[in-house]
Amino acid sequence: MTNPGIKAFAPASVANVACGFDILGFALKNPGDFVVARHADHSDGLRITKITGDQGKLPRDVRKNTATVAVQALLDHLGESSTSIDLEIQKKMPFGSGLGSSAASAVAAVVAVNKLLGAPYTKSELLPFAVLGEQSADGAYHADNVAPALLGGLILIQDTASLRWVRVPLPKGLVALVVHPKIEVLTRSAREIIQPTVSLELHSKQAANLGGLILGMMQSDFELIGASLQDLIIEPQRMKLIPHFGEVKTAAIQEGALGCSISGAGPSIFALFNNTLLAENAAAKMSTIFHQKGIEATAYLSTINQEGAYIC
Amino acid sequence: MTNPGIKAFAPASVANVACGFDILGFALKNPGDFVVARHADHSDGLRITKITGDQGKLPRDVRKNTATVAVQALLDHLGESSTSIDLEIQKKMPFGSGLGSSAASAVAAVVAVNKLLGAPYTKSELLPFAVLGEQSADGAYHADNVAPALLGGLILIQDTASLRWVRVPLPKGLVALVVHPKIEVLTRSAREIIQPTVSLELHSKQAANLGGLILGMMQSDFELIGASLQDLIIEPQRMKLIPHFGEVKTAAIQEGALGCSISGAGPSIFALFNNTLLAENAAAKMSTIFHQKGIEATAYLSTINQEGAYIC
Repeated sequence: MTNPGIKAFAPASVANVACGFDILGFALKNPGDFVVARHADHSDGLRITKITGDQGKLPRDVRKNTATVAVQALLDHLGESSTSIDLEIQKKMPFGSGLGSSAASAVAAVVAVNKLLGAPYTKSELLPFAVLGEQSADGAYHADNVAPALLGGLILIQDTASLRWVRVPLPKGLVALVVHPKIEVLTRSAREIIQPTVSLELHSKQAANLGGLILGMMQSDFELIGASLQDLIIEPQRMKLIPHFGEVKTAAIQEGALGCSISGAGPSIFALFNNTLLAENAAAKMSTIFHQKGIEATAYLSTINQEGAYIC
Repeated sequence: MTNPGIKAFAPASVANVACGFDILGFALKNPGDFVVARHADHSDGLRITKITGDQGKLPRDVRKNTATVAVQALLDHLGESSTSIDLEIQKKMPFGSGLGSSAASAVAAVVAVNKLLGAPYTKSELLPFAVLGEQSADGAYHADNVAPALLGGLILIQDTASLRWVRVPLPKGLVALVVHPKIEVLTRSAREIIQPTVSLELHSKQAANLGGLILGMMQSDFELIGASLQDLIIEPQRMKLIPHFGEVKTAAIQEGALGCSISGAGPSIFALFNNTLLAENAAAKMSTIFHQKGIEATAYLSTINQEGAYIC
């Protein structure tokens, strides 16, 4: 009989959230990735035994895969660098989608391995290791996907260097919609397209939006959320990477979205609603626009995932 | 017997608050300005009959004084452009201090005149007129002094163009200290010294501080307030206009300030505390540093003024 091991799930996440570039993200209920960790009796240390759902595209090399880079950092920190563990990664979400796919794998992996080792760390103590894993995928050190995938909810990274994070309380009835058009946008390219500076005026306006979004969420003020859920800096630069973005966003707003912007580095597009019915209508309209242009698109509709990663 | 008229008070305010350049400000209990408005029986429209406490430095021309520019905008909007009103301005606070002196005069003036005319507007409806008044003094359209001086509390200007503002709930026990060294820094010069762009990295870090400050205030998390009350963009550029700034700030932090930065365009320096005794000690230390260098300095200590402007 196969050793069942420990299986963990970590959800997709929406980073940036229009006005919080690199510092704000929330978790979806689905999709997400599963990772199974098992003690092994070989002496090869950490290994990837199987990856499913990636069409063979993810690295099998443990020094290059986000999941194993994260786990190795955890093992090194625990003084268990040479412990032999086999990982099986079950990709259940698209990668290169702007939905935090590499973050989800890294988070599920550290959560599974931590449990396998008797849970020496709390969830939030696992954050730095998962961030290191994701960094190996896109080259940047930021936690706006990893933190919500691990901890759930809407998370502000108050300080990236120290990974000080804060949970933003959310209003009841908030619904997230993500539409993923099957177009390839590499995170690295999406990052390279962005100007390295911003005018002081736009800085203040965007910061005011972030402040307004946080206040709106905490005070259940949907009008304020709507007014604040705007990206004046990144979206205007990145939208050119996503064909038909303008039309799809307009459809979301017309269907009653509080706001709509690019999820992470794209090409997925997210919108927030205070009403499930509106979100369902928007999902249909937004997907249809892509379909009519011959682009496959998948819509994911969910409340905000407040739990984050968990052991299955 | 003299017509007593209507007398209004508006308080000093601290704009920017380290991480909210042009979009965040709070009101002090004192100092502040008084304006008396009286109906007049001449046919000259709006007049300034007297200004006290300004050493003759403020413009007597109604088209140039912030108070009368604000009132004229109000009168024009009410269709009372040629109503004859006499204003007396009692400056009780230093100007060119970074304490929102022109905002206080503009706010007190519109509050007094509005009352004199039977209070056609609510306080928050008076905001645009006072902002126009202040704009005439420093050339920039922003409400981060005017809004708190008018409305009290800690105010985020979510959108400057529409003047959409939001009150940030505050923790109990917050104490504000302002130390005003008698050095002249003109708002215009303080603005000109600032680089017109900021790196995307600093933008995100500063926005994260603003988000953290708001969350810290709303959740009474003084550690988070302290971590967030930092200005990575403006203070490093403006501090050179304030001699001994570094030393004075260090003294504030050593005495237990949650944070310390420049008030508005300076030269006043503000610090926040969660304990009055610490604030008193810091006030003494910070003032002493200036005194030892031969610079006159005044310290103002108060809780946050939640009321804003009022009729006396």
